Amino acid sequence: MPESKGRVLLAYSGGLDTSCILAWLIEEGYEVYAFMADVGQEEDFEAARKKALAVGAKKFFLEDLKREFVTELIYPAVQANAIYENVYLLGTSLARPVIARGMMAIADKEGCDFVSHGCTGKGNDQVRFELAFYGLKPDIKVIAPWRIPEFYNRFAGRQALLTYAAEKQIPVQQTAAKPWSTDENLFHISYEAGILEDPDTTPPDDMWKLTAAPEEAPTTPERITIEFKAGIPVKVTVKDTGKEYTDAVDVFMALNALARKHGIGRIDIVENRFIGVKSRGCYESPAATILRTAHMDLEGLTLDRNVRALRDQFVTIELSRILYNGHWFTPEREFVTSSIPASQRTVNGLVRIKLYKGNVVVEGRSSNEGLYDEKFSSMDELGGFEPTDTTGFIQIESIRIKKWAQANIRKGQAGVEPKDVYGTRT
Amino acid sequence: MPESKGRVLLAYSGGLDTSCILAWLIEEGYEVYAFMADVGQEEDFEAARKKALAVGAKKFFLEDLKREFVTELIYPAVQANAIYENVYLLGTSLARPVIARGMMAIADKEGCDFVSHGCTGKGNDQVRFELAFYGLKPDIKVIAPWRIPEFYNRFAGRQALLTYAAEKQIPVQQTAAKPWSTDENLFHISYEAGILEDPDTTPPDDMWKLTAAPEEAPTTPERITIEFKAGIPVKVTVKDTGKEYTDAVDVFMALNALARKHGIGRIDIVENRFIGVKSRGCYESPAATILRTAHMDLEGLTLDRNVRALRDQFVTIELSRILYNGHWFTPEREFVTSSIPASQRTVNGLVRIKLYKGNVVVEGRSSNEGLYDEKFSSMDELGGFEPTDTTGFIQIESIRIKKWAQANIRKGQAGVEPKDVYGTRT
Amino acid sequence: MPESKGRVLLAYSGGLDTSCILAWLIEEGYEVYAFMADVGQEEDFEAARKKALAVGAKKFFLEDLKREFVTELIYPAVQANAIYENVYLLGTSLARPVIARGMMAIADKEGCDFVSHGCTGKGNDQVRFELAFYGLKPDIKVIAPWRIPEFYNRFAGRQALLTYAAEKQIPVQQTAAKPWSTDENLFHISYEAGILEDPDTTPPDDMWKLTAAPEEAPTTPERITIEFKAGIPVKVTVKDTGKEYTDAVDVFMALNALARKHGIGRIDIVENRFIGVKSRGCYESPAATILRTAHMDLEGLTLDRNVRALRDQFVTIELSRILYNGHWFTPEREFVTSSIPASQRTVNGLVRIKLYKGNVVVEGRSSNEGLYDEKFSSMDELGGFEPTDTTGFIQIESIRIKKWAQANIRKGQAGVEPKDVYGTRT
Amino acid sequence: MPESKGRVLLAYSGGLDTSCILAWLIEEGYEVYAFMADVGQEEDFEAARKKALAVGAKKFFLEDLKREFVTELIYPAVQANAIYENVYLLGTSLARPVIARGMMAIADKEGCDFVSHGCTGKGNDQVRFELAFYGLKPDIKVIAPWRIPEFYNRFAGRQALLTYAAEKQIPVQQTAAKPWSTDENLFHISYEAGILEDPDTTPPDDMWKLTAAPEEAPTTPERITIEFKAGIPVKVTVKDTGKEYTDAVDVFMALNALARKHGIGRIDIVENRFIGVKSRGCYESPAATILRTAHMDLEGLTLDRNVRALRDQFVTIELSRILYNGHWFTPEREFVTSSIPASQRTVNGLVRIKLYKGNVVVEGRSSNEGLYDEKFSSMDELGGFEPTDTTGFIQIESIRIKKWAQANIRKGQAGVEPKDVYGTRT
Repeated sequence: MPESKGRVLLAYSGGLDTSCILAWLIEEGYEVYAFMADVGQEEDFEAARKKALAVGAKKFFLEDLKREFVTELIYPAVQANAIYENVYLLGTSLARPVIARGMMAIADKEGCDFVSHGCTGKGNDQVRFELAFYGLKPDIKVIAPWRIPEFYNRFAGRQALLTYAAEKQIPVQQTAAKPWSTDENLFHISYEAGILEDPDTTPPDDMWKLTAAPEEAPTTPERITIEFKAGIPVKVTVKDTGKEYTDAVDVFMALNALARKHGIGRIDIVENRFIGVKSRGCYESPAATILRTAHMDLEGLTLDRNVRALRDQFVTIELSRILYNGHWFTPEREFVTSSIPASQRTVNGLVRIKLYKGNVVVEGRSSNEGLYDEKFSSMDELGGFEPTDTTGFIQIESIRIKKWAQANIRKGQAGVEPKDVYGTRT
Repeated sequence: MPESKGRVLLAYSGGLDTSCILAWLIEEGYEVYAFMADVGQEEDFEAARKKALAVGAKKFFLEDLKREFVTELIYPAVQANAIYENVYLLGTSLARPVIARGMMAIADKEGCDFVSHGCTGKGNDQVRFELAFYGLKPDIKVIAPWRIPEFYNRFAGRQALLTYAAEKQIPVQQTAAKPWSTDENLFHISYEAGILEDPDTTPPDDMWKLTAAPEEAPTTPERITIEFKAGIPVKVTVKDTGKEYTDAVDVFMALNALARKHGIGRIDIVENRFIGVKSRGCYESPAATILRTAHMDLEGLTLDRNVRALRDQFVTIELSRILYNGHWFTPEREFVTSSIPASQRTVNGLVRIKLYKGNVVVEGRSSNEGLYDEKFSSMDELGGFEPTDTTGFIQIESIRIKKWAQANIRKGQAGVEPKDVYGTRT
Repeated sequence: MPESKGRVLLAYSGGLDTSCILAWLIEEGYEVYAFMADVGQEEDFEAARKKALAVGAKKFFLEDLKREFVTELIYPAVQANAIYENVYLLGTSLARPVIARGMMAIADKEGCDFVSHGCTGKGNDQVRFELAFYGLKPDIKVIAPWRIPEFYNRFAGRQALLTYAAEKQIPVQQTAAKPWSTDENLFHISYEAGILEDPDTTPPDDMWKLTAAPEEAPTTPERITIEFKAGIPVKVTVKDTGKEYTDAVDVFMALNALARKHGIGRIDIVENRFIGVKSRGCYESPAATILRTAHMDLEGLTLDRNVRALRDQFVTIELSRILYNGHWFTPEREFVTSSIPASQRTVNGLVRIKLYKGNVVVEGRSSNEGLYDEKFSSMDELGGFEPTDTTGFIQIESIRIKKWAQANIRKGQAGVEPKDVYGTRT
Repeated sequence: MPESKGRVLLAYSGGLDTSCILAWLIEEGYEVYAFMADVGQEEDFEAARKKALAVGAKKFFLEDLKREFVTELIYPAVQANAIYENVYLLGTSLARPVIARGMMAIADKEGCDFVSHGCTGKGNDQVRFELAFYGLKPDIKVIAPWRIPEFYNRFAGRQALLTYAAEKQIPVQQTAAKPWSTDENLFHISYEAGILEDPDTTPPDDMWKLTAAPEEAPTTPERITIEFKAGIPVKVTVKDTGKEYTDAVDVFMALNALARKHGIGRIDIVENRFIGVKSRGCYESPAATILRTAHMDLEGLTLDRNVRALRDQFVTIELSRILYNGHWFTPEREFVTSSIPASQRTVNGLVRIKLYKGNVVVEGRSSNEGLYDEKFSSMDELGGFEPTDTTGFIQIESIRIKKWAQANIRKGQAGVEPKDVYGTRT
């Protein structure tokens, strides 16, 4: 018997692709350990375990990463209002660092020199996984079969995989493949590829798995209160039932259930992948959609204007890009997240929310922080400061503007006027 | 009879405040011309004209600024996805430059050395108006009665104004004053002050004037298509009726009608005023809410990733701040807007939208620009580029990350790990 | 005897202005305590003490703030490469927070409800001082005589002050006043106003106080080594003498002496004040000029590219603006500086410097951080990564560029070509 | 005779590498055309032409690109103050777009489907060239021998090249190879690799080719005046001789000669290459160093504060990154440069400069723009605005700071205090 080429830890999903990869790696002379992460996806982990071992994995590891996913990735993203290209809440991106870290811990403990995965050669996930691997364990060797010509040429098309599965006696689910791909975890589910590749094709109603259609959602609104401490949701109270949730994961899962029921969190976009390709994706992010609205609203009440502006322009945008591009285990991520605590020190308070047919409506918010002061903002009373102060403020603010306006007038330059942007086409 | 102190052009609204200011300015020895701008607000302009002249205005000017408001301010804001603090679509801010410009044109033509307005001493509008005046006509002199002690001490409280109005025979509407203030134009209506000053008070249902409540909106969705050229909406088609709108103002008003019917565009926030005070505001921006969603969606399909990222971080954020703070007629506005055309050259195409009970759902989008290419993004086929290229890409991307990871390992520094941000409170 | 209007802590300089203010405040009915900060300026503190008490101050406080100035303000600024408008190293701005904090501590301890200073009404320092006062002690009341009409109208011009000084028996230095103003501390000296207000006037040779003119500096270069830990200079070694400096203040003062000798650190600029006025200033910042060059150089060797880029764009620029505008005791400063440690964790090593007639020349740098790797960067050997990887990198990087180029070609748009910017004027 | 594999346009330098590549391409079955760009480097173009044809090139093209290099790349970079990592003036980066464009024009005209170059597989230039090729002619095919295993394995080391050259009768210069590599054009010369790969090795004195050592430069300063229009240098006047230069290229070359004489423009840095490798480079950029200082100085006098701040943070930084990374022919470059004209409209005036032993000293500046106003900035006179206005300005600016300070005091949080960053190591 030939010596093993080495020990590979395979990110295993239980599906056709990674089962075939498992068999192929063995065929190629590797010893394969299978790894699954429980990040909240709907999955029969026990069936996957049996299957992996049946196909030939020497060991099978199932790691429950749900809590660290919520407390180490999701809640910092909530604190930072992370969002990619103004729309995508980064559900897949957020799960990758905890999965990669789980794998590298096993690889270390079990002496695996290699790691493998079933990501395609055109997507973001291959990049996210591999950069995370290298950021944690720079000497790890990656086997990415879908980028190896001998593999992808041999298994071009689903039929080739099915034939190989039959040959290797890999059990295949008899259900028809969906005409799109999905990735699911407790934060979201994504849909892409297949019929969705035409960006003008409306997703079929039965694609959406997590959330009710707004049209099918209850006709009665439901009201909840979310309490934040340092920008993190620490309590959810459902008004009608009085039910309260305070555990980190419970809070998130309770919001998920509420949002799913009320049709909240669907999006359908064309986004720009890290590798420079445009790609159409549909997502359901139920709890995250509520949390984003509530957190940003509370920041209005409790966060200083200038901190908010700087945080929006730098931390929100840069951290979102870092997450999307798979740069979590990098010095720039360490740098960017180091400023989050100072930005959230005052983000403490309650937000009252109404959920109704896809809408997340803020109905009120309160806080003891004291940055909001009715007396100061009131239009109806003198208080806080002298109106004459504002005259001075405006005069000082206008100094450089007047100088510029005088220069324009002197030079007869009207170039600063607004332009009729529509005019050229009427 | 004493000589006039000078000619004042007064921004007149027809209401109690500016009518009293009109009378007071005359009492103070000024000759007063009254100015009204039609920016699409619901108003009886003829009644206002009569009232102004009755109170003592020497002349009355009504300027229809609706078209320039749409084509010179609103559409550039749509192109730039302008938004303040992630929520407010800047409806009041956008109207101020056209009104100020209208006033300065009359002031020039009619030889008014002074201009006056009824803005309070704590709000944004005084700043927006006055900086715009100075940016256009740096030698204009501003009389802001609500910042002049003799005025605001004399007229402290509504009753003092009513008494003065009676004395000056100024007709007063007998309807009870609303317990909040509003500002309306064709883009939006704002509500603030009064009972809204408690940020935990839910606005009463009958406050919202423009839009149906989502609960009251039609139970049947309505579908429309919006065509953009260079990021500007040039055609709206209503699917069921086949009706088309192509005129700049018609497009906007048609979207307003559709959005109002379907309960779209309400927000309720605490925002940060330019003067540093936090303030609670509620807004209805019907058409603008649809346009923002549609325009951003089309950019996903048609705008280069790096242009989008730079535009989002710099132009969107800076232009929004400029608008909010009333810095339209400034060199920085000229600088920032000069880059918009290059960012919108490729933003051409159609977006299909479903409107339903407060939701703006994108159902598809198409364009001839060609930056999206199914073959490139397809997960299911080889095409566009070699999967092996991605291996090289990832290797190069990982060079600096590996170096950093090696240094961390060597130094035993685990500081780059994610942290359980929730942990301290469990 | 009338009751005192209250106790004022006056920022006292010993000069004509603040001596007259001292006398005037007493005349106005205040009890005055005089405060001086030793931030390294050349000053006869004892003479000032005697003068203050002679003029009528009830108490005199001299606080030595040199060490905290260096360790709490200057070194963080070095870590962040702080610079205003690309040229000004912020010497005056950096001293203000420690002085203001020293004053507020005394005000608290001594029960002063008022604070006063001699800053003019057009400069930055009034803003820096007062915003710092308010950020530490929001209920402090500020008396700024140069902004009070009764004061500035009475004392318009130096002669009025001299007359008043004579009347109040305030001793006046008989030396002729310099035709400019200065502010000095251990970081720098500034010159402004007077003859410098014409931006085309070359400063006279004898204005420059701290540094030798490059023309007069030694004709032999001098070599030093600076060691940094976490971006902070912890040791300076002078090559020829072998002298070493390791104390925080000693390090800075030794660099000051070396730089002054070699004509390093003069600048002459027109800058933009916070209040929007342009102003001409000349500055000598000897040590700071060396430290900036050395620190940035070491960052080249030891700081990750992406961290450096983000830090440059956000922390350097924002912190510099915060410092210049006097926003040290604000939430945005707290936010921005919170990210500095993560950016400097790896900035450890040595920089070898040559000083010669105004030039700070880096001759070499070394570090144990290991982010630089000769094998990786060597053009002459294969090592570190495969050249074929770069092919993949370039192919992936070109995906979106090719799509855009194809679209341009298809549309016949040559708009992306470089333009001859000079052409219009030949 | 076998059919040609196709026609290759080779970027030819006349040196050993590209001569061997030329021969190798022919050996591989390609028809080779040789291309040289004259961007101002010191070169015997006629010798190179003869050599290329002797080795077997079918045609030889020499393009004089000096003027477009200056007017389309260098002057926009001056307008934008482009600089990479605060130190590198981008001399190599700036030349690449004009060279790539020259090559693509010939490739189009001569029907070359392939293009080739001698760049190594680890540097920036391969990326800059190839991305520029693809941005202009997306269907061009690139042959990069130093990334092709058959080539780089065969020619590992200089000796293999020499042997091949001898075999192919390629004439080799008998001068010993320098222990570093250089790239030269009219903007700069770069030195890297070889002995410079140790970042602690001081470059030998005789390495520096363009500039005098400051120690060897004249002991008498020389004074010049530079006139800018819209941020572009349009006239240089040498004070002592009265000589004037106004042609775009003459202006630049005259400044080069002056700066070289006075020892101006040397730098020595460790920089971060686009591919993520750190690399040590030395550069001489004589004229560019003067122009940067002069242009930034004039902006102090003539550019609005807010425009300058936005331009510095976005255009300067982003354009510099774009240039360094070879992204000139991209949509983001088109976007970023589109805002330059609006930023330079007012940058008109004269800067007086003293050149002395490595120092570029601004001695004065003047302009008719009128944004600087002595009356406004004067500390010595009332004028421009009321000092009392500043009181209002400060009061308004302090509103949110006071609120925050009150909250801190209430919560007993001293977290916003400066920290002794040095303390941990004393």
